[in-house]
Amino acid sequence: MTGPLRGRSLLSLDDLADAEVDLLLRTAAALREPRPEAPLRGVTVALVFLNPSLRTRLAGETAMADLGGHAAVLSPGQDAWKWETRDGAVMDGDAVEHLRDAVATIAGMVRGLGVRCFAGMRDLRADLGEATLRAIVAAAGGTPVFNLESAADHPLQSLADLLALRESLGPDLRGRRFALAWVPHPKPLPMAVPHAALRAASRSGMRITVCCPEGFEPDRESLARFRAEAERRGGGIEVSHDRAAGLAGAEAVYAKSWGAPSLYGRWEEERPLRDRHRHWTVDRERMAVAAPGARFLHCLPMRRNIEATDEVVDGAGSLVRAQARNRLLVQKAVFLETLRP
Amino acid sequence: MTGPLRGRSLLSLDDLADAEVDLLLRTAAALREPRPEAPLRGVTVALVFLNPSLRTRLAGETAMADLGGHAAVLSPGQDAWKWETRDGAVMDGDAVEHLRDAVATIAGMVRGLGVRCFAGMRDLRADLGEATLRAIVAAAGGTPVFNLESAADHPLQSLADLLALRESLGPDLRGRRFALAWVPHPKPLPMAVPHAALRAASRSGMRITVCCPEGFEPDRESLARFRAEAERRGGGIEVSHDRAAGLAGAEAVYAKSWGAPSLYGRWEEERPLRDRHRHWTVDRERMAVAAPGARFLHCLPMRRNIEATDEVVDGAGSLVRAQARNRLLVQKAVFLETLRP
Amino acid sequence: MTGPLRGRSLLSLDDLADAEVDLLLRTAAALREPRPEAPLRGVTVALVFLNPSLRTRLAGETAMADLGGHAAVLSPGQDAWKWETRDGAVMDGDAVEHLRDAVATIAGMVRGLGVRCFAGMRDLRADLGEATLRAIVAAAGGTPVFNLESAADHPLQSLADLLALRESLGPDLRGRRFALAWVPHPKPLPMAVPHAALRAASRSGMRITVCCPEGFEPDRESLARFRAEAERRGGGIEVSHDRAAGLAGAEAVYAKSWGAPSLYGRWEEERPLRDRHRHWTVDRERMAVAAPGARFLHCLPMRRNIEATDEVVDGAGSLVRAQARNRLLVQKAVFLETLRP
Repeated sequence: MTGPLRGRSLLSLDDLADAEVDLLLRTAAALREPRPEAPLRGVTVALVFLNPSLRTRLAGETAMADLGGHAAVLSPGQDAWKWETRDGAVMDGDAVEHLRDAVATIAGMVRGLGVRCFAGMRDLRADLGEATLRAIVAAAGGTPVFNLESAADHPLQSLADLLALRESLGPDLRGRRFALAWVPHPKPLPMAVPHAALRAASRSGMRITVCCPEGFEPDRESLARFRAEAERRGGGIEVSHDRAAGLAGAEAVYAKSWGAPSLYGRWEEERPLRDRHRHWTVDRERMAVAAPGARFLHCLPMRRNIEATDEVVDGAGSLVRAQARNRLLVQKAVFLETLRP
Repeated sequence: MTGPLRGRSLLSLDDLADAEVDLLLRTAAALREPRPEAPLRGVTVALVFLNPSLRTRLAGETAMADLGGHAAVLSPGQDAWKWETRDGAVMDGDAVEHLRDAVATIAGMVRGLGVRCFAGMRDLRADLGEATLRAIVAAAGGTPVFNLESAADHPLQSLADLLALRESLGPDLRGRRFALAWVPHPKPLPMAVPHAALRAASRSGMRITVCCPEGFEPDRESLARFRAEAERRGGGIEVSHDRAAGLAGAEAVYAKSWGAPSLYGRWEEERPLRDRHRHWTVDRERMAVAAPGARFLHCLPMRRNIEATDEVVDGAGSLVRAQARNRLLVQKAVFLETLRP
Repeated sequence: MTGPLRGRSLLSLDDLADAEVDLLLRTAAALREPRPEAPLRGVTVALVFLNPSLRTRLAGETAMADLGGHAAVLSPGQDAWKWETRDGAVMDGDAVEHLRDAVATIAGMVRGLGVRCFAGMRDLRADLGEATLRAIVAAAGGTPVFNLESAADHPLQSLADLLALRESLGPDLRGRRFALAWVPHPKPLPMAVPHAALRAASRSGMRITVCCPEGFEPDRESLARFRAEAERRGGGIEVSHDRAAGLAGAEAVYAKSWGAPSLYGRWEEERPLRDRHRHWTVDRERMAVAAPGARFLHCLPMRRNIEATDEVVDGAGSLVRAQARNRLLVQKAVFLETLRP
């Protein structure tokens, strides 16, 4: 029996039809129970980390081992060569290999290629355009590519979050209240996880509030697309600059920091704006205005007592541990559904 | 058949009853012969190295592969995120993730968690208290934890040494003469291996001499505990500051350097004391006063011709190679006895 | 059935009889098809990288996984200890472990030991003498050692190149025209790949031209040996300093940069010489004088548009992708033929 995802890449939740999302989440939940078979015996994938990783690396390696296959982890620039990404470049600088050659080499040796390639953090449009990820897909020449967090997306996080939300709030999330809460952080962070969270919530038809300081509104075009998606499914998106009221009535509060899109790439200018909102930490007081029993979500890694206080993170409504565990389950589901013979 | 160690952690030799030590060493010896079965098929452990490793990493990875399972190796701060260890910390510094979140995440994905966390080398009492290891065990929430060398212990080394001593001197070590010989080293080293060696020898009821310069005596409380343990089993511990006489009659000479506990954390003050004892290298002349056919032990890595001379390390009585090989065998025994279904 | 390579090391193409080269290349080609068996189940090898790697690391890890075994990757100095290589050294410097102890430890835990140890780049004779590789073989004490690129050799590249040449030009390469084309590079590179290419071509009886600027002629003694080998098989070697005529009539153009042997180790003096030949890039114009349909080869990683232009690398005659894929196939063949029970 070959499923609809066999041989496919996973670059974004946007690539998946509703039935395919449902299939992956059903498969993920079923994989909680250990199974004696080794359905991916003889299958090797490469996991390429252009940036550091804990959860994703361990989830990927454990997922393949659990399924009977193998994940080879590569960290170019650390234990391998540094890559050039510009087409046609005259390579007389630091980079000793072109991404095209490296990726084609890797793709020629394995059955699937996971890649982590964070945002450049200089040009918002370029980052939203996912140039590096697209170049990798092109160079892979048909070998499935799995996005392990790119400049502006993180589909495995989207799937893990969806699984946690459905198991916690119920299978039908339409019309449920979701708040994406901007939180402080010592550094400006990319838009990958905020967008992944908005993709998951809008795809589910949730009623979304993006609660952030002025200047931190997500990119207008992206927001319009998420809004259209949410509305098509009976939900919607509004933006609130009110630290307190923005979380009012929320059944799920997703805390995440990001750099101000209005000053993207000008991070020295952006810093004072970020520093002025250090009191946006999600604490018990802020959670008090949310719906009774509201869930708290965060993708980790988290700056505790900066992004959210210990009592919220470790509190009864926190889904943080479930989200992390789900990362393994959805990783297994993705490998199984795309790579099984 | 489930053994007495199933689902257990291994933090110290102190955690094991005599029958459990015997079981592990019997299992280790039996695992010398390759076996066609894969008793840990489908089992993944994570090996977390907060400090570098060669023997331990390779032993762990090979042990799991030999048993049909998989070991995922993580090096936080190098290929993953740097960890905060203080409870309640406001995380606005370098550390991007709290140990509690990282460990809980890892423990949620695997069946066992090995961890190497060296001494802080600032506060002897804190290091002897094993705060980091305890925090990791707490955060692992029931997932077995394996100590791959902590601030003040190294149980896998203890077991490997015991296997080498029993196979070399005979199964009953009670009353046999064991010398722990302090040796010079360019750097002050932690107490993990000296304590692990004293644990192994005192648990075996050996007659122990700690041969070290003045100021290098092991911590008094720890020594009292090891002495009580040795005496309960028919042995004993004495301390000798005599470079020559301290090794007299020893059947096993265990060479190891450590920083002076009397100046712990004040390493600039300690350096001249250490430098004055550069002639404490174990050489043929020092070994000559030991018992005829005396064995030489060292845990590796070793500064050759500083800690011991080539002719001693490579000589007929050296157990160094056996100790290293035993590291794989005891690692396999520990994984097998704790993790098999 | 035990083959002639069982239990053997692979240090150089020179170690292999013709029939053994043929066996490895036949096995490699046959391994293109996935096989359900796991002939190396329970077999672990260690791959030790004293220098960075992408292709070799991934090929080694994937090869073992495909065959049912496991490859443990170690990077001493990065995730393990830094090694001393001098015999008898008094180890009071940076190196915390002697190569002899580290290698004996590794070899005692695994069934085979791959090692990458690049040239020291100070003394040509020392590098050609392969002191580090020889020391590793001695310390491994009978455990098979696989050369993953040493100071002056790269046998897995030789085999991958031979497979590409035979499949492209025909199984009998005697008398066929092979040009080794020196190309520019921002850095002086070692002789490992140029020598590996000359070994492969001379062993095949090809008619070889080394096309390089004056001062870049390969070491005279090595060249004499390669020439004798080529002539014994009906081929030959000549050296041409003519950038254009040197490639005339070549059926295979192997592009590779190397530091000027005439100024080996005096790299500041060598730089102006190298810089004067920046126009030696292999481009369409240079390829135009080669035989019609001439093949282009390069071992990767490549500085695109410095060593060769995009249109040559990506052109119809390029074997670069095949060479890279072959690295996996020959790695599998070597592991299978040497390590199968």
